[in-house]
Amino acid sequence: MNSSSNSQHRISFIPGEPVHDPERTLIFLITPTYTRPTQAADMTRLSQTLQLVPDIFWIVVEDAHNSSRSVEDLLRRTNVPYAHLLGPRPPTHLDKRSGRGVSNRLRAFEWLRENYSNTTQKGVIYFADDDNAYDVRIFEEMRSTRIVSMFPVGLISTLGLSTPIVSRKSGKIIGFHDPFIGRRKFAVDMAGFAVNLQFFLSQKKATMPYKVGYEEDYFLKSLGVQIWQLEPKAENCTQVLVWHTKTKPADQPKLSLMKKVTNYTETNLPDLYNNQLEQS
Amino acid sequence: MNSSSNSQHRISFIPGEPVHDPERTLIFLITPTYTRPTQAADMTRLSQTLQLVPDIFWIVVEDAHNSSRSVEDLLRRTNVPYAHLLGPRPPTHLDKRSGRGVSNRLRAFEWLRENYSNTTQKGVIYFADDDNAYDVRIFEEMRSTRIVSMFPVGLISTLGLSTPIVSRKSGKIIGFHDPFIGRRKFAVDMAGFAVNLQFFLSQKKATMPYKVGYEEDYFLKSLGVQIWQLEPKAENCTQVLVWHTKTKPADQPKLSLMKKVTNYTETNLPDLYNNQLEQS
Repeated sequence: MNSSSNSQHRISFIPGEPVHDPERTLIFLITPTYTRPTQAADMTRLSQTLQLVPDIFWIVVEDAHNSSRSVEDLLRRTNVPYAHLLGPRPPTHLDKRSGRGVSNRLRAFEWLRENYSNTTQKGVIYFADDDNAYDVRIFEEMRSTRIVSMFPVGLISTLGLSTPIVSRKSGKIIGFHDPFIGRRKFAVDMAGFAVNLQFFLSQKKATMPYKVGYEEDYFLKSLGVQIWQLEPKAENCTQVLVWHTKTKPADQPKLSLMKKVTNYTETNLPDLYNNQLEQS
Repeated sequence: MNSSSNSQHRISFIPGEPVHDPERTLIFLITPTYTRPTQAADMTRLSQTLQLVPDIFWIVVEDAHNSSRSVEDLLRRTNVPYAHLLGPRPPTHLDKRSGRGVSNRLRAFEWLRENYSNTTQKGVIYFADDDNAYDVRIFEEMRSTRIVSMFPVGLISTLGLSTPIVSRKSGKIIGFHDPFIGRRKFAVDMAGFAVNLQFFLSQKKATMPYKVGYEEDYFLKSLGVQIWQLEPKAENCTQVLVWHTKTKPADQPKLSLMKKVTNYTETNLPDLYNNQLEQS
């Protein structure tokens, strides 16, 4: 882990620009985000985790029409290569069944195709939501993904986890153990798989639907991957190195209560609340 | 931040042993923890944050009679100096009004007095719960604490934050803005202040009561500190660099559901569940 925390500094990049480096296998981390009271806390934790990971490229996509100053400031501070994009939900998909994150990820797909089609860049695509918890070891597990790799995810609703089922005999993935199987061929969590960049680019029809609960399954089907091709990671799916954590929602800062402080304009409170409101 | 991620490696230590280094001001981070499904995720995130902080000493105290293998493994992997202690709640204080974390922190106080009384070690004590979110910049803010320093904490219940009130004119702390004032002289969150090590050691009566909502206030009163002595940090308390986040509780892994998988003994599931149960 020491070597990781140092080795990231070998990669050279221009803030906001794609990296082209034939020597490295980059992990393209796609993080959808949106403005809310817990955003700064969640994004800060994730950004600090990523400072320990060498050779990553962070694609942060806001569900917004204008980019947020606090997200841009955080990206600049973090000192990892990044793209800061906007992927607002279209007016046709604001309902609950459409869910969050899809418009952001579709925008990231577009950006990857624009910048890496017809290149030989080695890379792996991973969907990293901003409130999950990542053990840095998971990134080294996924870096060798040839087509699609999979691994267990902790803290998934009623089961406590979601995992591919791996045959001891063949070492192959033969099914899925997940609280929600439904009509899914690939019953996995968004944080439970990674995709080879060149494989993704070669599958021109790859996309993600606006359909809560089926995003992962439809995406993997659109890639044309078969179950026998899946690569189990994390010691044949016996280790949990990523958790589907959710930060408890919090209240918005209450400006009205600030004003109850006697002579509040003569204190730190106006500046503090202004700084807070920029973030939420 | 780059220099931080490298500079921690200058400190030399023996796992589990106190560090004596007259050249450095160490931050003694006291983290109470207990076994639960979200513990591994929370402790992993915190441990990775600490890998970016130079010159810290992590005192992890479990509310348990036996130490947990997964906590010890995590501490060894993390590569920061640490003490791994046990501070179970006494049978007289298992009720709701006694709350969690006090027995752990009292054990840490004992350990600090045993190992640093009659030394000249420079240091700062900070209470870092395992589920909060820390921007690494907060540690550099608190490192210069001469007696007791204070700073805002985000995501505090109905107000959205808790902060000392700082007079613009004098630059001094003159009161507190917190959702719960009650009968508290110091209306602050546990994550909102730091204490100089030698000052703490000089105050032999310093302690923390088993009294939910009053732990911080009684502790600060027991230190004999006065409001005019408090040192505001984080740009005169106008920046939020620490958040009182709570990870949503999760279900325990369900062994019974694993057994519904056909031929489950021939798969990765038994090992995966064993590894999970060690952590929760």
